[in-house]
Amino acid sequence: MRKFNFCAGPAALPEPVLRQAQEELLDWQGVGCSVMEVSHRSPEFTAVAEAAEQDLRDLLSIPGNYKVLFLQGGATAQFSAIPWNLFGAGSKSADYIHTGQWAEKAIKEARRYGEVNIVASAEDRNFSYAPAADAWQESDDAAYFHYTPNETIGGVEFPYIPEVKSPLVADMSSTILSQPLAVERFGFIYAGAQKNIGPSGIAVGIVRDDLLDRALPDIPRSLSWKIAADGQSMDNTPPTFAWYLSGLVFKWLKAQGGVEAMAELSLKKSQLLYGFLDRSAFFSSPVSVESRSRMNVPFVLADESLDKKFLKESEEAGLLALKGHRSVGGMRASLYNAVPLEAVEALVAFMADFEQRNG
Amino acid sequence: MRKFNFCAGPAALPEPVLRQAQEELLDWQGVGCSVMEVSHRSPEFTAVAEAAEQDLRDLLSIPGNYKVLFLQGGATAQFSAIPWNLFGAGSKSADYIHTGQWAEKAIKEARRYGEVNIVASAEDRNFSYAPAADAWQESDDAAYFHYTPNETIGGVEFPYIPEVKSPLVADMSSTILSQPLAVERFGFIYAGAQKNIGPSGIAVGIVRDDLLDRALPDIPRSLSWKIAADGQSMDNTPPTFAWYLSGLVFKWLKAQGGVEAMAELSLKKSQLLYGFLDRSAFFSSPVSVESRSRMNVPFVLADESLDKKFLKESEEAGLLALKGHRSVGGMRASLYNAVPLEAVEALVAFMADFEQRNG
Repeated sequence: MRKFNFCAGPAALPEPVLRQAQEELLDWQGVGCSVMEVSHRSPEFTAVAEAAEQDLRDLLSIPGNYKVLFLQGGATAQFSAIPWNLFGAGSKSADYIHTGQWAEKAIKEARRYGEVNIVASAEDRNFSYAPAADAWQESDDAAYFHYTPNETIGGVEFPYIPEVKSPLVADMSSTILSQPLAVERFGFIYAGAQKNIGPSGIAVGIVRDDLLDRALPDIPRSLSWKIAADGQSMDNTPPTFAWYLSGLVFKWLKAQGGVEAMAELSLKKSQLLYGFLDRSAFFSSPVSVESRSRMNVPFVLADESLDKKFLKESEEAGLLALKGHRSVGGMRASLYNAVPLEAVEALVAFMADFEQRNG
Repeated sequence: MRKFNFCAGPAALPEPVLRQAQEELLDWQGVGCSVMEVSHRSPEFTAVAEAAEQDLRDLLSIPGNYKVLFLQGGATAQFSAIPWNLFGAGSKSADYIHTGQWAEKAIKEARRYGEVNIVASAEDRNFSYAPAADAWQESDDAAYFHYTPNETIGGVEFPYIPEVKSPLVADMSSTILSQPLAVERFGFIYAGAQKNIGPSGIAVGIVRDDLLDRALPDIPRSLSWKIAADGQSMDNTPPTFAWYLSGLVFKWLKAQGGVEAMAELSLKKSQLLYGFLDRSAFFSSPVSVESRSRMNVPFVLADESLDKKFLKESEEAGLLALKGHRSVGGMRASLYNAVPLEAVEALVAFMADFEQRNG
């Protein structure tokens, strides 16, 4: 029996997508084998790859001067790829906003290859908010400006896109496809698939094509956006099954009404949970109201000693993976696109009951 | 209906593995979701990862002083990773044997980071053989010695493991798990999964632990074997579904009798096909007898103008993906572990019939 899954990633996938994959797992499109067993250069798989790109372009209205890349190594490989791809055209300095653990990982890797200017940091209040733009100290010669629109662990989301001088680079792993996006305001967008796109093992990159010639000369082949773009993301054998499943998710998203529908749904889901948290005397959100994530909702119990009981009983009630990240503790409910409204309703009902019994 | 699949990669997977994956695709082990939808750090997935490693260790008798890594980016990422991980301890020079297209890709990437000494090359006879060891010119100070035990495109296989002075590094993408292996003779073994291990999107690395401290200081995080080893191959979110499927393949291999049984089977399958090719006046193998691959069997028709007809009719007969690599033309039958003897029998019967009708 399928349960409600609040995992932060690898996360819930749409059930119709899994059902289709299941049905055709042994014999795909009458080919006589699985989609996993055909050459990535076969006409059948090429059609999958092209449709996935086109559907993603449609969903996010990606302009023609942007390349869409399907990459390996997740967002973490991109933490290295970003300085390697952008520090080769003069400036080896970049602006970063420090909003929590994922921003920090990106910063740490960039520092190995050049200067990092921390434009703003939310460390002063335990990374519980997105720093306001009016106090930012941008560099004059930054090769790029990096931020994390949604911190998966901290549950902090920027309610706006920063206006910056240099090409804007964003780790959208946990927020991509959850609302309409002005892609034209970015230089490079990247996202690990395992939250709002598909299974783990594939990542999406969206890069403005004038940025493809700025790589450091020694860039390892596997990190080069230009090589990926020139080779239709097939410089090496791509993760074909993950690509295929991502494509099915894109088609599912379109059928749901696209990112406009997802924006509406994600607001509804997150407001339902935040509304409950704010009314409760027992549960609370550690995140500043104006920076609360629609995707990842951390919350804590008034009595920490009940954490284990909460996790045990919620799992028994069919509500999976509510444990907070091991580095911060507490609870976290991730409300990605494939998590239905009914899941959040069931969660809130469970929490209300738990509060009554233990509060 | 499942057909016989001779694809060079992504290649055929064992049908029982696909059936199990299909059955539990929506609800895995009664967890209430797919294996794709659970955290890679959950106890359930950790058990999958650990079992996969242990089963691979059992299959290949991997000694305790070797680390087993599950990596992203395929063998191609390792072409960069090898010099990055091994050129930091003094020598920035390496020995390579040039046996064809895959060796060449490895050489090209290593040359960007140090000196490459071509110990031997089979270019003189169009890469149709594995150069004999007696004429090799090894360096005195090589950081490592790299070779390609099986060239997937050329269909050339080394019938022995080279005796060399420096740590031996081998791209085993298309030959791993097809026979017993003296792992202790190697410094680093790597293999993209999509031939004899599992679906594309994951690669296996087996590294002797004293080689983990030789990396160049600027090595990108995603290429570091040490970081992969220290983090149980979970420095970033791993490709969980590909890892799980690889684990199922390892269990299937054990049930078949392990690599000893695969060695026997691969000899039987390849000898059946080579025997037919050698008796035929119409089909022939371009590879020197002593270097013929048990895994990838390229062959050509006496009359090239019949290639298209052969491919069309073989596909209609339920024999998939016999087209040779786009760079060399002709035909190629890949006979990995998951390709049953019956597939080769059907292929030989079809070829005999085709010869009779067209020869």
